Amino acid sequence: MTLKLYYTFGTCALASHITLIEAGADYELQRISFKDEDHKKPEYLKLNPKARVPSLVTDEGVLTETPALLAYIAQKFPAKNLALIGDPFAFAKVQEFNSFLCSTAHINHAHRMRGYRWVDAADEHSIKAMQKKVPESVGEAFALIEKHMLKGPYVMGDRFTICDPYLFTLSQWLEGDGVDLTKLPRVAEFRARMSERPSVRRAIEEETKKAAA
Amino acid sequence: MTLKLYYTFGTCALASHITLIEAGADYELQRISFKDEDHKKPEYLKLNPKARVPSLVTDEGVLTETPALLAYIAQKFPAKNLALIGDPFAFAKVQEFNSFLCSTAHINHAHRMRGYRWVDAADEHSIKAMQKKVPESVGEAFALIEKHMLKGPYVMGDRFTICDPYLFTLSQWLEGDGVDLTKLPRVAEFRARMSERPSVRRAIEEETKKAAA
Repeated sequence: MTLKLYYTFGTCALASHITLIEAGADYELQRISFKDEDHKKPEYLKLNPKARVPSLVTDEGVLTETPALLAYIAQKFPAKNLALIGDPFAFAKVQEFNSFLCSTAHINHAHRMRGYRWVDAADEHSIKAMQKKVPESVGEAFALIEKHMLKGPYVMGDRFTICDPYLFTLSQWLEGDGVDLTKLPRVAEFRARMSERPSVRRAIEEETKKAAA
Repeated sequence: MTLKLYYTFGTCALASHITLIEAGADYELQRISFKDEDHKKPEYLKLNPKARVPSLVTDEGVLTETPALLAYIAQKFPAKNLALIGDPFAFAKVQEFNSFLCSTAHINHAHRMRGYRWVDAADEHSIKAMQKKVPESVGEAFALIEKHMLKGPYVMGDRFTICDPYLFTLSQWLEGDGVDLTKLPRVAEFRARMSERPSVRRAIEEETKKAAA
């Protein structure tokens, strides 16, 4: 089985990309350029009518939404036990964390560049008001992670799981969001450590090469 | 094992409540009043520092985030196969749907009453601008569900899954959000049918009784 990941550089698709490498999966990459509006072209909308990334094409059909992709990759490649899925409570904690990232941390971040989803695009005052709140709203989400969720050394403690590539990916955006990293020493240490991991280096290198090509 | 669900009437906690009944679980309910700010009291913050509902207290610890709770209940009570978890692709489709509900449909809705999460609470212009966009943003999320996701008769087709209580719960809010139901005939039919289901009637009755008590 070859899996094909449609991704855009600088997006949360990186989490699935890293996880494919960690799982030892055979995969292909297909870059989607937001600038060229690839995500709005008919051939992509056939795969993903939501016009978002990532999309993962499998032998059985297309999958979208990062938390779903991460658990799927973990379940298809069980040797690494990346989602702790055999233990319902442990798996639920993994899913709880990833759900918080997708529905709170990522959403708060999205108000910086995608405010038009929630107010009229021409309403400059409201678009700016949203951007102004981002350091606080993303900062609060990450303060919860720093204090209550990141057990250390990995998110779930001693075991590397699908939570780690996802947190790493979102933590890359903190400076851009104007969040003060000095208030998040454990997240900062986690991110620095993860950035040295071979799977992370390889994923970023592959996406950067494609972006430059 | 008794599971204790902390819920607030009128929130997405209803999805977990219905699922507990469908699973045949032993459960207790604990109402959290937003009006009385129960969710901000120290005893609740100890359970759930995010100050949100639902929270599910298990013998092993506390779980939060609806998609995580739904998959957990399904996995703990496997007889009904409520999440199709034995089939990685089918389970991923279930998770993809629930992830879309939590990170897109519910989030768009939340801009009507919880806009202060993403702009300064005193900025009336922006708060109103967000509210004004809700019929469109929630309408678009549900148009995707209507056209691409709801297979019928259940979300996943012939099988009732954890997607159904979750979609039912969010579809209860459409009129309040100003969405035109006549454009969503399949969602409207699904909702009407689900509202007659014994688990749904019982969950709503239990929450209503507690709310009145």
